[in-house]
Amino acid sequence: MNVAQKLIDAHLVEGEMKPGTEIGLKIDQALQQDATGTLVMLELEAMGLDKAQTEVAVQYVDHNLLQGDHKNADDHLFLQSAAEKYGYWFSRPGNGVSHPVHMERFGKPGKTMVGSDSHTPAAGALGMLAIGTGGLDVAAAVAGKPYFVKMPKVMGVELKGQLPDWVSAKDVILEMLRRYDVKGGVGYILEYYGEGLKSLSAMDRHVIANMGTELGATTSVFPADEEIKRFLRAQGREEDFSELKADADARYDAHEVIDLSELEPLIAKPSSPGNVVPVREVAGQSVHQVVIGSSANPGLRDFWVVSEIVKGRMAHPDVSFDINPTSRQLTENLSRTDGFFNLLHAGARFHQSGCMGCIGMGQAPASGKISLRTMPRNFPGRSGTLDDQVYLCSPETAAATALTGKITDPRDLEKDLGITYPKYKAPDQQIINEQMLVAPSQNGQGTDLVKGPNIKSLPTFDPYPNAYDAPVLLKMDDNISTDEILKAGAEVLPLRSNIPEISKYSYIVIDDSFYERAKDAQAAHPGHIVVAGENYAQGSSREHAALAPKYLGQLAVIAKSYARIGWQNLVNFGILPLEFINPEDYEKIGRGDMLAVTSARESIQSGDDIHIRNLTKNTDIACRHSLSGRQVEVLLKGGIINHFKE
Amino acid sequence: MNVAQKLIDAHLVEGEMKPGTEIGLKIDQALQQDATGTLVMLELEAMGLDKAQTEVAVQYVDHNLLQGDHKNADDHLFLQSAAEKYGYWFSRPGNGVSHPVHMERFGKPGKTMVGSDSHTPAAGALGMLAIGTGGLDVAAAVAGKPYFVKMPKVMGVELKGQLPDWVSAKDVILEMLRRYDVKGGVGYILEYYGEGLKSLSAMDRHVIANMGTELGATTSVFPADEEIKRFLRAQGREEDFSELKADADARYDAHEVIDLSELEPLIAKPSSPGNVVPVREVAGQSVHQVVIGSSANPGLRDFWVVSEIVKGRMAHPDVSFDINPTSRQLTENLSRTDGFFNLLHAGARFHQSGCMGCIGMGQAPASGKISLRTMPRNFPGRSGTLDDQVYLCSPETAAATALTGKITDPRDLEKDLGITYPKYKAPDQQIINEQMLVAPSQNGQGTDLVKGPNIKSLPTFDPYPNAYDAPVLLKMDDNISTDEILKAGAEVLPLRSNIPEISKYSYIVIDDSFYERAKDAQAAHPGHIVVAGENYAQGSSREHAALAPKYLGQLAVIAKSYARIGWQNLVNFGILPLEFINPEDYEKIGRGDMLAVTSARESIQSGDDIHIRNLTKNTDIACRHSLSGRQVEVLLKGGIINHFKE
Repeated sequence: MNVAQKLIDAHLVEGEMKPGTEIGLKIDQALQQDATGTLVMLELEAMGLDKAQTEVAVQYVDHNLLQGDHKNADDHLFLQSAAEKYGYWFSRPGNGVSHPVHMERFGKPGKTMVGSDSHTPAAGALGMLAIGTGGLDVAAAVAGKPYFVKMPKVMGVELKGQLPDWVSAKDVILEMLRRYDVKGGVGYILEYYGEGLKSLSAMDRHVIANMGTELGATTSVFPADEEIKRFLRAQGREEDFSELKADADARYDAHEVIDLSELEPLIAKPSSPGNVVPVREVAGQSVHQVVIGSSANPGLRDFWVVSEIVKGRMAHPDVSFDINPTSRQLTENLSRTDGFFNLLHAGARFHQSGCMGCIGMGQAPASGKISLRTMPRNFPGRSGTLDDQVYLCSPETAAATALTGKITDPRDLEKDLGITYPKYKAPDQQIINEQMLVAPSQNGQGTDLVKGPNIKSLPTFDPYPNAYDAPVLLKMDDNISTDEILKAGAEVLPLRSNIPEISKYSYIVIDDSFYERAKDAQAAHPGHIVVAGENYAQGSSREHAALAPKYLGQLAVIAKSYARIGWQNLVNFGILPLEFINPEDYEKIGRGDMLAVTSARESIQSGDDIHIRNLTKNTDIACRHSLSGRQVEVLLKGGIINHFKE
Repeated sequence: MNVAQKLIDAHLVEGEMKPGTEIGLKIDQALQQDATGTLVMLELEAMGLDKAQTEVAVQYVDHNLLQGDHKNADDHLFLQSAAEKYGYWFSRPGNGVSHPVHMERFGKPGKTMVGSDSHTPAAGALGMLAIGTGGLDVAAAVAGKPYFVKMPKVMGVELKGQLPDWVSAKDVILEMLRRYDVKGGVGYILEYYGEGLKSLSAMDRHVIANMGTELGATTSVFPADEEIKRFLRAQGREEDFSELKADADARYDAHEVIDLSELEPLIAKPSSPGNVVPVREVAGQSVHQVVIGSSANPGLRDFWVVSEIVKGRMAHPDVSFDINPTSRQLTENLSRTDGFFNLLHAGARFHQSGCMGCIGMGQAPASGKISLRTMPRNFPGRSGTLDDQVYLCSPETAAATALTGKITDPRDLEKDLGITYPKYKAPDQQIINEQMLVAPSQNGQGTDLVKGPNIKSLPTFDPYPNAYDAPVLLKMDDNISTDEILKAGAEVLPLRSNIPEISKYSYIVIDDSFYERAKDAQAAHPGHIVVAGENYAQGSSREHAALAPKYLGQLAVIAKSYARIGWQNLVNFGILPLEFINPEDYEKIGRGDMLAVTSARESIQSGDDIHIRNLTKNTDIACRHSLSGRQVEVLLKGGIINHFKE
């Protein structure tokens, strides 16, 4: 078996390891960040959880660190009280970015993890099976339930040779994105192996595993080898090491080879991580901002290399040179080298530890100007500036560009500025201080959740009704994304722990009368239905795109087809996702039509066609669902929270 | 003469040094921060300035450092281009807070300065006469015009003895606030002298001069003595020193004595800097946040003392321990002691250099929880949280509280935790790096101003009309503040360089139909009039409270009386501030009445009563103005920008 198969095999509690079929996995660890964690904690409250059942559960605070009003600070207190109540570790604001901190303090080879953050796969660097998923799935895992996912295929990526000077781990994953683009990893676990691993440190592997998410992969894994042992020893955790390697005769479903010695500095152009070209092809363009940091380049090496390149020099006067330290531990260690001083002296704006600009929490660039970042994503507007021009690259390329003010291939520093490539040597022992990690309470059950005025408990929902008449409030086109169902942004994000309030923004991008009409429908009927074309609820995994419409009485969606996570979220929150048996029936329903559903519970359970009567047009529409037996149970009970309570 | 009189005497270009009468002063230096500076630069553009005429003009960027969208970053680029065009120094984002940076790099004994920030008087620590004022006054000074102010009285504050352990400069100014409250300094310059000065460093004096603003004083001054020489030597600027001391027989208009040896740790309770009590009176209350930083405690000593107190210990788990470094230079120097490491290791959230939470730029505390800060102000809601509970104190009190999680008299650390008072010794030589200060261009006149989509040039205004009919759009009560005329806050602040856009918020707190009605009045008539009671336009000095209504066609305000700065701003922007001769005439005008003004220009010039006909009620109202000859000229030309252009 390969490493991925060994990890799955050791945790398989339901199903078979046959690609494409549903499997259930025992989950050892859980990770939450604050922007998604508030909802997870509210879900646990609604489930009535006693205590986290995973070996380790950690609530991090790394996203919402800019406190413009009371809301974020209130959320931090809420999360701290919830962590105490449910037996989580609590990583205090300022302690750092979840993924690298988790790897340093908690990650263990051979373990499984789910996390309510899409970059959770970073822990694959340690030989873990780590998957990013929706909050309810994390809540269920924390409550001791298996995690359900379709068994992925495994692609073996053989690494040969050794990286040249001025080329680093970020260029390896950018090379993968150059080859496969942002959907090339869908349905796969990427497993890296080969002699090339010898020169990639644990944190280098984190860089590669982290951004595997941008390929669409289910996760990425590396073997747990001598380097992982060294890493854990430097973290004072050698006892957590156990070797995990592929069998000599391991097989893969797909194959890829990268010769590291042939790589050159790469860069992803606006506005997709898959838009990768050699740096030299875009060199010379003026840059207004350079940002170092994020979970995509979190290692001490990454900051130290930058500090050595800019040492004794000054960031270009037209460049805002922003440094987001990964963690307090990173900054402490950096301050014990000359690295911290050298960065500051070169003009760095040194920010607090956390995700910061990577999730648009400050650091928005000026209009239309180029920002060059060591981050994982450059989707349009993600930086906070609508017409942003964000490029993604390695720390070496970023440092070179900060000095010259133009996109610069770092290899040019050697001839142009006489800078030799700084060779990093990891310290044998890192400075470690776990005091900003508040340990789980053993008896937190009596703890009161601290809820600021913006934090509301989850609404409760009834079991699925058997028969109802309900109006069609929206008729939508193909490819409706979760951004259109429940938009993101600074106005809406702070309402993530307040479902009644955030529900007012449901479908506002499509139709700003939706909220009022849904309230009316809820008063006059059991609720409402919406109709859509192909690929409904594509995009981000945000659960609010199901929960908020549910709160406004959404009973069913009738669509031609669904995106995977969006579909799963509908079921989790008790909304029936129906498909047209004859896609042309889409034309038989109009906005405002009244539909009658009868014998819904029996039909859902039996798997028979569901016949819906259009009372307005006096026609019938045949629909079906494709739920698993487990999902039927969940739906009929009114969602996964009710299911868990029973 | 005393120090204040010597400074004034050496710069007097108009008037006499008679308290209460208008004097004109030659201005040597000018300081702008970014939140007010964008408007100053737009004013200079409207004036058509060629080049700054002051010896030194510096544009700092320290307020709007959190870039939620393109606006703040665009403003930074605009300010940088304007600095180049008009011959300013430009202090790049991340270089630090204006007042301490100015003192370290530019301040000179014996010089005058105006600054578009209310804490500009901090430079009085060096023996300068430094006054905070509206942006147009700074623009005029930069253009080489005198600064006009009513000659203040001088209060001599004799400092005796020496501060006990655990008591520091912040407690001295808190003692002044305990004695005089927030209006006790109005009309005065506060001049400190006496043997007590010997133990107060230049930066300690900065703390005291900075917060003299909270007493309402025009400014504060200290002598330039041996300590100032030492300070400038450590900054590598000994050649900028010149002694400035009061004559042996100097007289003061008022007298005060503080025996430093009798002071104890003090604290300002919510929600006024004048609400001062001994720390021990409020000790024991639970605290959720401790913030170190701001221009009110900017010295290396202030941070080092905190770092020594928390060394090897940990901030209480319930406390967010936020550190706002004063400047890049401060952080560099701190990183060369163990101070930086000790703060981090104790759990500090170390933020970028700047004002940050002091002006509500992040760091808003949780709802209803206590936040303890070394900052100068705790007005209600200024932190960003409406029901905030902000206390102001010394670094010693803040550090003690961060450790215990409860408001703590730092003297208790000695007996409770065995901590001895850390004695600070200033380094002989500071690490200095001026590279983030971009030097003034010698030939910047051809530079194009870089204007993002949110930055609009100032509108132009016509000379004052001689006769007009105009409707009364608002009838207001007494004590209308500039916060009601043009509110602050995160929604409105980013619009400060966009007058058309920000004008939509005019009077929105009082009447949200104002904008539409003003636009209608502007279409149908030459503009509009508003009526108010006593003390119109009190509060902050923001110019937008005159400029935005002017942009919407405001011709005159008729009020029972005015606040000083608000009144001055009306004239500067060409709005006629009229007073009722008979206050009971206030009753003769109602909202919506049409008023007719005739022969306005002649009456304004002659100083005769101005008779206004209420066409709606068929009555006459007699009014007058109290403008100086200079102000009459300014008003008739349509404001100070037109005046300057001529």
